[in-house]
Amino acid sequence: MTSDIRINSQRLWDSIMEMATIGATENGGSHRLTLSDEDKIGRDLFTQWCEDAGMTVTVDELGDMFARREGQDNSQHPVGMGSHLDTQPYGGKFDGVFGVLAGLEVIRTLNDHGIQTVAPLEVVNWTNEEGARIAPSMLASGVYGKVFDLDWALSRTTVDTGATMDDELKRIGYKGDLPIHDHPFKGFFECHIEQGPILDNAGISVGVVNTAQGFRWYDVTLEGFASHTGSTPMVSRRNALLGMAKIVQAVDDIAHEHAPLARGTVGSQVSVEPGSRNIIPSKVSFTVDMRHPSAETLDAMDSALRQVCEEVAYEIGLELSLEQISYTEPVAFDETCVSAVKSACEMLGVSHQYITSGAGHDACYVANIAPTSMLFAPCKDGISHHESESAKQEDLEAVTNVLLHAVLDYAGISSADG
Amino acid sequence: MTSDIRINSQRLWDSIMEMATIGATENGGSHRLTLSDEDKIGRDLFTQWCEDAGMTVTVDELGDMFARREGQDNSQHPVGMGSHLDTQPYGGKFDGVFGVLAGLEVIRTLNDHGIQTVAPLEVVNWTNEEGARIAPSMLASGVYGKVFDLDWALSRTTVDTGATMDDELKRIGYKGDLPIHDHPFKGFFECHIEQGPILDNAGISVGVVNTAQGFRWYDVTLEGFASHTGSTPMVSRRNALLGMAKIVQAVDDIAHEHAPLARGTVGSQVSVEPGSRNIIPSKVSFTVDMRHPSAETLDAMDSALRQVCEEVAYEIGLELSLEQISYTEPVAFDETCVSAVKSACEMLGVSHQYITSGAGHDACYVANIAPTSMLFAPCKDGISHHESESAKQEDLEAVTNVLLHAVLDYAGISSADG
Repeated sequence: MTSDIRINSQRLWDSIMEMATIGATENGGSHRLTLSDEDKIGRDLFTQWCEDAGMTVTVDELGDMFARREGQDNSQHPVGMGSHLDTQPYGGKFDGVFGVLAGLEVIRTLNDHGIQTVAPLEVVNWTNEEGARIAPSMLASGVYGKVFDLDWALSRTTVDTGATMDDELKRIGYKGDLPIHDHPFKGFFECHIEQGPILDNAGISVGVVNTAQGFRWYDVTLEGFASHTGSTPMVSRRNALLGMAKIVQAVDDIAHEHAPLARGTVGSQVSVEPGSRNIIPSKVSFTVDMRHPSAETLDAMDSALRQVCEEVAYEIGLELSLEQISYTEPVAFDETCVSAVKSACEMLGVSHQYITSGAGHDACYVANIAPTSMLFAPCKDGISHHESESAKQEDLEAVTNVLLHAVLDYAGISSADG
Repeated sequence: MTSDIRINSQRLWDSIMEMATIGATENGGSHRLTLSDEDKIGRDLFTQWCEDAGMTVTVDELGDMFARREGQDNSQHPVGMGSHLDTQPYGGKFDGVFGVLAGLEVIRTLNDHGIQTVAPLEVVNWTNEEGARIAPSMLASGVYGKVFDLDWALSRTTVDTGATMDDELKRIGYKGDLPIHDHPFKGFFECHIEQGPILDNAGISVGVVNTAQGFRWYDVTLEGFASHTGSTPMVSRRNALLGMAKIVQAVDDIAHEHAPLARGTVGSQVSVEPGSRNIIPSKVSFTVDMRHPSAETLDAMDSALRQVCEEVAYEIGLELSLEQISYTEPVAFDETCVSAVKSACEMLGVSHQYITSGAGHDACYVANIAPTSMLFAPCKDGISHHESESAKQEDLEAVTNVLLHAVLDYAGISSADG
């Protein structure tokens, strides 16, 4: 019975740990920035593993890697599994890597059991998800999803050397010739650590990701008047920091009003002028980040933010500049893909819940082109993008088993040994 | 009748304008930092003017200058008038300078009219009121008022060259031998621009300063937890910036609750970590400045601040550090001196009101030793410590006439020509 097969948890774990030695940091994390020398070594190792598992690796013009295992009916589009192998600076061992190596582990497990699928399968490594060395994040999957232009992406430069993405792809030998837009998927499944505390707090092994937050990012500036903290009466003040305080509180309130899915944050990028303890703040600049999986709710949050900013500026006598600098649409993942994941959870009897992705992922852009969904594994205290990022082997095992059976269900089983 | 005499408004104005040419800035201000080459030139000019007016200039061991006009009864302590000639970096033409040159103008006027006082008079220039080149502010008057130690003051260093105050006094030739603590005053009167908007807004020429704010300065740090703005539920957050926002609002509320004299401000010296728009602020550091002329009220404000900080930290789950880094006692100026100023206003029929000094001044420390009061002149929009600092000739004239008659009243008139 194919329903009885399970992945090899130790092999998966060992592969994640081996990949983590490339760019390993003193404090147990990984520093493997996109298209760096370390990224090349990681890509070479992944290629070797895929070839050892009998797959053929091709590379597209943005360095995206596709390790293919043929199916019974190769006229069908492949079912993709994957994520990204690059990391944040001094990042963790699991973010992205788990999603790629979970795909590899599925293939290895199918090999162990001599199972052939109807549709071909592909394990994918998307280039530059992190955006830390070359902005913006999810650059290659964004081109794939037709959010970014290919030539624009190739011309983006690194923060360290100033070289273009195109130069760096050639330098490390991963400038492929496969056209990025000529690569359809029958379906795509991305495993990822949650990067939030919900599953860890609830003690649940698998997050069935059915939606991803849309988000709006804003730059806000308030300008008042610098004057002396001692000699300026309270009623004569135009205190820009007081305006910011009211907006920080309001952003928090707006998110609570749309609980539990809404998020609203004034981020940690704040500037206050002129920078003296006895001068009333004359100018503050800060950012606002609003998220919700429903575009309508996000619109309502946007309206509430704009209203409160104008009221606060008027009340205190401040000049307001409020600029939305980016908008990412909410994603509703494909019902069939989500359902395949949910059914696999039920079949395997693992603890699971629906969850909304709060962060952006390659799958969010792939979803523009192909039926897509995601699976989340809990990570300790919700911490990621940090050397202390941690996940339990048993949870990664559970998620990868769900991936295995969701993919088998979705691709179809052609034949199995014994 | 001596009650009919008036100062020479144009001479006063011209002297202020001439002093302003020393260290003049492009935008109409003055840059004459304490014990700099420009300060030496300013001191030399002041010395020349005083000697031209028949006075004898002596200098104490901290560079404080005392220009003396003998009285009829020189066994009496002198009546002092003065302020400071140093400026903020790119500061204004009036702050401090007006108080010194108003004293000089009183002497010149007495000379014009051949008036001799009973007590001797002295025009004083206190060293380093601004504290911009050598911290802290009001350093020499603070030693005079026994708030700071003499040797400690002499060992304070400049921010530009690192030289000690003692070195700099010797370098510019203003290290005197008069012991600072051997210089009693019968009374002391300091004229100053208000550095706040109250008189300017009310269209009143003379502020009769009867009290000066006490103030408490605090350093506050709140530490929460850095996590992702998208994946961290609102209820799981420990947002340090939200804590700061609540405290900024509370500080403003506390000051309003003790209106109109209280002031409460989170200043413009703020740091927010880790500095990313999609990371929830994990650590904020900021300052609090609380002021009131009553020590009891200031104590109540202190208690309210401490309580709200603890409540906010508890509510959000933040670690709080709240440290009071300085406390300056409120000053109640001497009733006799204040009354002399008030009576002169009434005699002259100039618009006036009682006012509390919100900023620190040399007179606040002199008041520890001698009967003291202050007179404020309105300054445009309350702006000072800025090149655009501005005052009207007619207001400076009115204040200096009040000074003249308050000092005559206080010192006593021995004889007058005609």
